[in-house]
Amino acid sequence: MYKYLDKVDSPTDVKKMTTEEMDLLAKDIRKFLVRSVSQTGGHLASNLGVVELTLALHKVFDSPKDKIVWDVGHQSYVHKMITGRKEDFVSLRQYNGLSGFPKESESPHDIFDTGHSSTSISIAQGLACARDIKGEEDSVIAVIGDGSITGGMALEALNHLGYTGTDMIVILNDNEMSIDKNVGGMSRYLSSIIRNSTVNKVKDEVEKILNITPAGNLISKTANKVKDSIISSFVPQEGEFFDSIGIKYYGPIDGHNINELIGTLKKAKEVKGPKLLHVITKKGKGYRYAEEQPEKYHSVSKFDVKVGTQSSGTASISQKVGEKLTLMADNDDRIVAITAAMPSGTGLNIFEKMHPNRHYDVGIAEQHATTFAAGLAKNGMKPYFAVYSSFLQRGYDQVVHDVCITQKPVTFLIDRAGIVGNDGETHHGMLDLSYLNCIPNMTVMAPKDTKELELMMDLSLSINAPVAIRYPRGNCYYLEMGDYSPIKVGSYEILSQGEDIVVLAIGNMVKHAIEAKEITLKVNINPTIVNARFLKPIDENLLDELFKTHKKVITIEDNVSSGGFGSRINQFIIDNNYNVEIKNIALPDEFIKHGQVDKIYEEVGLSPNKIADKIKSL
Amino acid sequence: MYKYLDKVDSPTDVKKMTTEEMDLLAKDIRKFLVRSVSQTGGHLASNLGVVELTLALHKVFDSPKDKIVWDVGHQSYVHKMITGRKEDFVSLRQYNGLSGFPKESESPHDIFDTGHSSTSISIAQGLACARDIKGEEDSVIAVIGDGSITGGMALEALNHLGYTGTDMIVILNDNEMSIDKNVGGMSRYLSSIIRNSTVNKVKDEVEKILNITPAGNLISKTANKVKDSIISSFVPQEGEFFDSIGIKYYGPIDGHNINELIGTLKKAKEVKGPKLLHVITKKGKGYRYAEEQPEKYHSVSKFDVKVGTQSSGTASISQKVGEKLTLMADNDDRIVAITAAMPSGTGLNIFEKMHPNRHYDVGIAEQHATTFAAGLAKNGMKPYFAVYSSFLQRGYDQVVHDVCITQKPVTFLIDRAGIVGNDGETHHGMLDLSYLNCIPNMTVMAPKDTKELELMMDLSLSINAPVAIRYPRGNCYYLEMGDYSPIKVGSYEILSQGEDIVVLAIGNMVKHAIEAKEITLKVNINPTIVNARFLKPIDENLLDELFKTHKKVITIEDNVSSGGFGSRINQFIIDNNYNVEIKNIALPDEFIKHGQVDKIYEEVGLSPNKIADKIKSL
Repeated sequence: MYKYLDKVDSPTDVKKMTTEEMDLLAKDIRKFLVRSVSQTGGHLASNLGVVELTLALHKVFDSPKDKIVWDVGHQSYVHKMITGRKEDFVSLRQYNGLSGFPKESESPHDIFDTGHSSTSISIAQGLACARDIKGEEDSVIAVIGDGSITGGMALEALNHLGYTGTDMIVILNDNEMSIDKNVGGMSRYLSSIIRNSTVNKVKDEVEKILNITPAGNLISKTANKVKDSIISSFVPQEGEFFDSIGIKYYGPIDGHNINELIGTLKKAKEVKGPKLLHVITKKGKGYRYAEEQPEKYHSVSKFDVKVGTQSSGTASISQKVGEKLTLMADNDDRIVAITAAMPSGTGLNIFEKMHPNRHYDVGIAEQHATTFAAGLAKNGMKPYFAVYSSFLQRGYDQVVHDVCITQKPVTFLIDRAGIVGNDGETHHGMLDLSYLNCIPNMTVMAPKDTKELELMMDLSLSINAPVAIRYPRGNCYYLEMGDYSPIKVGSYEILSQGEDIVVLAIGNMVKHAIEAKEITLKVNINPTIVNARFLKPIDENLLDELFKTHKKVITIEDNVSSGGFGSRINQFIIDNNYNVEIKNIALPDEFIKHGQVDKIYEEVGLSPNKIADKIKSL
Repeated sequence: MYKYLDKVDSPTDVKKMTTEEMDLLAKDIRKFLVRSVSQTGGHLASNLGVVELTLALHKVFDSPKDKIVWDVGHQSYVHKMITGRKEDFVSLRQYNGLSGFPKESESPHDIFDTGHSSTSISIAQGLACARDIKGEEDSVIAVIGDGSITGGMALEALNHLGYTGTDMIVILNDNEMSIDKNVGGMSRYLSSIIRNSTVNKVKDEVEKILNITPAGNLISKTANKVKDSIISSFVPQEGEFFDSIGIKYYGPIDGHNINELIGTLKKAKEVKGPKLLHVITKKGKGYRYAEEQPEKYHSVSKFDVKVGTQSSGTASISQKVGEKLTLMADNDDRIVAITAAMPSGTGLNIFEKMHPNRHYDVGIAEQHATTFAAGLAKNGMKPYFAVYSSFLQRGYDQVVHDVCITQKPVTFLIDRAGIVGNDGETHHGMLDLSYLNCIPNMTVMAPKDTKELELMMDLSLSINAPVAIRYPRGNCYYLEMGDYSPIKVGSYEILSQGEDIVVLAIGNMVKHAIEAKEITLKVNINPTIVNARFLKPIDENLLDELFKTHKKVITIEDNVSSGGFGSRINQFIIDNNYNVEIKNIALPDEFIKHGQVDKIYEEVGLSPNKIADKIKSL
């Protein structure tokens, strides 16, 4: 079916090929990728962009002795295919199936688990320094995108790497994109290297000057000599910044030219010290739809290869957040929106269209985003930072130090809270309730449904202090239960009155609690279901009533139990000596693998079924 | 007493002065600083370095309308002195006294609270963008050191600033130091600008080339023309990197020349867009001892001005950690030590001397430090990252994503846990038990005394997984109670058997519990005191015994109660239905101001006295 790909079961098979054969193999790989991902869903555009680069790396280097670290890792499909896992792509990102990211547990060729951005240089430098201490010899390569390299930790790593002079290679995979279009000064710098190398500038400059001289041939000859000497004294200057911090720059290199890639990689392998290879690639390369709209083909669901991916028609919660914030900003000039390189993922692309002057895409920079928001707030704005739960971990110190200590009215719109599904361990938002719960001065809430999410956004506008609203990944959903009038800070609501047992559920888990009650009613167990929409502050009055009228309490949250919602309720019960029996249902104290959301909830005991079982067992 | 300083009660008084008078004022200020800090303790060397810079800023700009943001903020003393607070220096860093950092609550001239490094550009950009949205006109200035500018978030901010083109000034205060000597490629880059500007390089190059031409005067004339044109086409190139990312570079500027400073600031004020002024200063300027050993005079206790500061003779816990790790590394080649610009603060300077090849100072870069450690661990090393509790917040995502998900055997030596005293809100380590507690796969412990700390370090060596050991700031102390044989993971020990009440204390609080018992014994209350040295895992067997033999339980920790040690014990009690009454003693859910450690513990209810009261009240 695939003439060349069928021959490849390990990197050794690639090594045997001529560059012409590798070009044909690249074609096969692209065909396979488009077909396979169209059937399973997954990351497409980034993988289409690194086909030749991946092949060249495996041709020149000897994995896993030589260590290739993939930054973020969603571009590791080609690497997986040629390291013996192409048959597994039918199960890509599915429960117990192939991960969409490098996994040490999956193959010795996957050197380190990645998922979040900008970690690869630090990892690779660690590997290389350990190698040097042990006196071993192998090559270490970090492959990082031009979006990821502007993340603070990558810049910290470059700074350290230039200083230690450690022998390793950084491949800067420059496709001028993160998931969306890249922003930032560094991106401008990299583009300027490509467009307008210093060599050319010097050449032009010198020629211009020499043209004004009056003398004839003699001058002309001298002039040429001068010109050449000057130019050579400035070569290579394309990556002068990298060179000046101690990292040898090579490039720009055509990332779809296997010969050029192999040549430069071999050269870089021979030279000791830190090197940066600036490789230019095209995201989505080889599949027309993906080339035209790479951000749409970054992460896709199943699609028809011939017509491309189609929008589902169902609005995501993220989109709704973008729309709501846009409406709010229509009526309030203080509202500004911030994203860290995720305008479409967070729904802020909608805001950007209507209020471009109050929309900031800061690049992959959650630290800066958070403190930048604090600065905006100090000067009279109401900033909203829309960010994925697990990525906000990157701005943790800034949440504490710059927003909460100084009580700035910044609202965090925490998307992808709870189980996110296919992206797995690194992307589940299972810690936010805990890591926010301990920070003084913050109001933390989670809505029962999308309508209540909008009410919480309204509420946040009136709170002159730090606020966090967390909500899950997925499509909008509406319970149409309870009250939908404006929410008061720290107020819970009883959604369904019952007896004996009270179930306190927060956010997304309210829906599961309601569904669980439908199950337990069949065996005549009728718990009271409470929408505990605030982690902080809790509704002490309502809880007081409930704990006097119910003997048993269950808390439910899609967060680990340590320090989360349940633990706050436990403390309230203990502090006030209520005579109730309590059970906390939460995510287990372990990292949770990828797979379909429903399957994971069933597995960890948070599905309506499993919750019903626990209610029954009380 | 101070001829010029006495005349200054506000920035207006500085504005009236001639530059000659300002030079004399600078002398007064230095004299005042040395005398005042010698009596109270505080940050000295950094403040001596920015005297002229601070005066020039207040001369040219109109604070607080124009906004000056001090990065880290320990260099804001001069700013405080000339904004009406010089009388308050007698109470510097004392309970209810003047803060050692900028505080919005203290003066309108303090635009934003700082304390941690690298936040100023983000804050300033936020202020400036808000100003632009509102259509106001004022200047915004961030003052950041050459150490701080290599922190990831500062680089993220520069990247974003170059892109937005926001009108503001970044003053790069380059003294080639963080607290210790600076490291890193960026530092090298900045030095190269100073040493060897491109202009000079081009000049030399062109002259060298033109000298080889055979022709006479005519050539010489042409040559000069060529030379000048080429050179001018390369001016200013000193800060080419900054210019190429979109930030206009000015410098280097002599930071002790008031005239030059004022001139450049005025020029920068007139030019729109982002500017970076590279100002060269000398840390400790004007006080011989501080100039010679700036790291020793970074933060000082009281000292004799004439003979300088003397070492106290008492070993700090940090020093002991450095010594112990050095000893461990003598016998184990896998041990490597990492610091983020804090070799002397963490005690790793001791390690560095003995094992320079296994010591890494990564600069102000907690994110990189953490993931770099993970990379080292992956390749066979046993990395120890010594870091202050509140600074580890900067590497939070990396602890989760790169160390704990992949279960790398990295040990975090968490210094400055609990109340640190004079540095206040931003430096207390009051969240670490909570933010670590929720992360799967981590062993978290805290020793009763310095001897047990060493035992825990021994233990960490045998744990092939992530470990955190937290300990307080201060001098070594020894309880000489209980067992000092090797510790088993998750084992608690009874230090003093009693009855009815069991006190579970963790870390530093064990000492307070013991002292509290001495007090309660006087009224015949005899609690059992337990050294609960593990937050995770807890000693379930011992707790089971204790909860069957005691009716009342008290937990004590110098961490907030949400998600900390007490909450873990609560959960164990709830999960197992023990019939005990429990009370959690912990830090309150608020940020805690600066002051003497003992006073703060008394104030928040964690002093032995206050603990005794709570034991009695049960």
